[in-house]
Amino acid sequence: MTTKATNIFEVHSRVDRKTREERNRHKGGVLWLTGLSGAGKSTLAVEVERALFAQGYHVYVLDGDNLRHGLNSNLGFSHEDRTENIRRVGEVAALFAEAGFVCISAFISPYRADREGARKAAGDSFHEIHVKADLATCESRDPKGLYERARRGEIPDFTGISAPYEEPENPKLVVDTASQDVTQSVALVLDYVARNLAFAETTGKT
Amino acid sequence: MTTKATNIFEVHSRVDRKTREERNRHKGGVLWLTGLSGAGKSTLAVEVERALFAQGYHVYVLDGDNLRHGLNSNLGFSHEDRTENIRRVGEVAALFAEAGFVCISAFISPYRADREGARKAAGDSFHEIHVKADLATCESRDPKGLYERARRGEIPDFTGISAPYEEPENPKLVVDTASQDVTQSVALVLDYVARNLAFAETTGKT
Repeated sequence: MTTKATNIFEVHSRVDRKTREERNRHKGGVLWLTGLSGAGKSTLAVEVERALFAQGYHVYVLDGDNLRHGLNSNLGFSHEDRTENIRRVGEVAALFAEAGFVCISAFISPYRADREGARKAAGDSFHEIHVKADLATCESRDPKGLYERARRGEIPDFTGISAPYEEPENPKLVVDTASQDVTQSVALVLDYVARNLAFAETTGKT
Repeated sequence: MTTKATNIFEVHSRVDRKTREERNRHKGGVLWLTGLSGAGKSTLAVEVERALFAQGYHVYVLDGDNLRHGLNSNLGFSHEDRTENIRRVGEVAALFAEAGFVCISAFISPYRADREGARKAAGDSFHEIHVKADLATCESRDPKGLYERARRGEIPDFTGISAPYEEPENPKLVVDTASQDVTQSVALVLDYVARNLAFAETTGKT
């Protein structure tokens, strides 16, 4: 009885990523959007999610909306906590990629070292996308009034004002939202996904 | 230009859970397996994942294998760290449920208060499943030799030996792995999922 039970509860292999991807007809991956506050990361993330979902992709956005009050609710705004915030996002994004999703993360993530951690978590599935707009453009948009508050000194260590933004050195894609509108910006990302994450369909093409 | 840019980068609504579930033809949810070490949580999780995947479900397992070295790599074994471990698992499981997955978590999670936190994160999508085997059975299996080490005093605060296991008071399902084999145990969970998470198909049934 004992021996039998031991054998019975031997662990079998999990459903692997390749099997998931074959069913989904696309690779899993992390689209890591990085850029200044106001550069358009959240908008781009949500619009790309909608478009990819409509195309049949399995896609999910990680951003402040679903992480701030949940997984990262016990983190503040110290440098250490911000690093831990990005570390957790990177690890969760990697899990979603492993589960076969195209996971879009939308966080300023101003430090190269933190983004490098996220890249390591996801491995080859990591796609860094620089959502790029100059500070003046971002500040003029200021959708949440944060730049104004930062200029008044009410928000310490605000990226671009009182804390650095370390631009990606070798991003997979740059989306310039200062000179392109949302439709153009979304199209660039969709094209990138089609080239890098879609499975080639064998029907109807030669 | 400024106004235009501001308007352009207005955030639209994300793909909501209902839309995801309709495409998947099943609800998202968290199957929270709790029980002693050796009760069979991991085996059950992996076997249920395989079976559900084969049935077309979107399903993913969270367990020590994919969390210990990633998201929870900066946690130790103090009571505080164990609580934080379960809190993070609960939050990530809730994200997977929100993304439309059946997320199976397989952790001892011995404390009611910790499981209650996971339940709150996932809301109505939380399904507590007690993977139940008496201590003697679990100890006789001892697949990783942990009970033996715990009895020798080499592992402090080991659930069932030197730390309590607080049984679920009102689990949605009890799977008795001491008296049932894996096939029977898996069938119980599959039946539960079919009754609680599957969408009723309208074709061919009256």
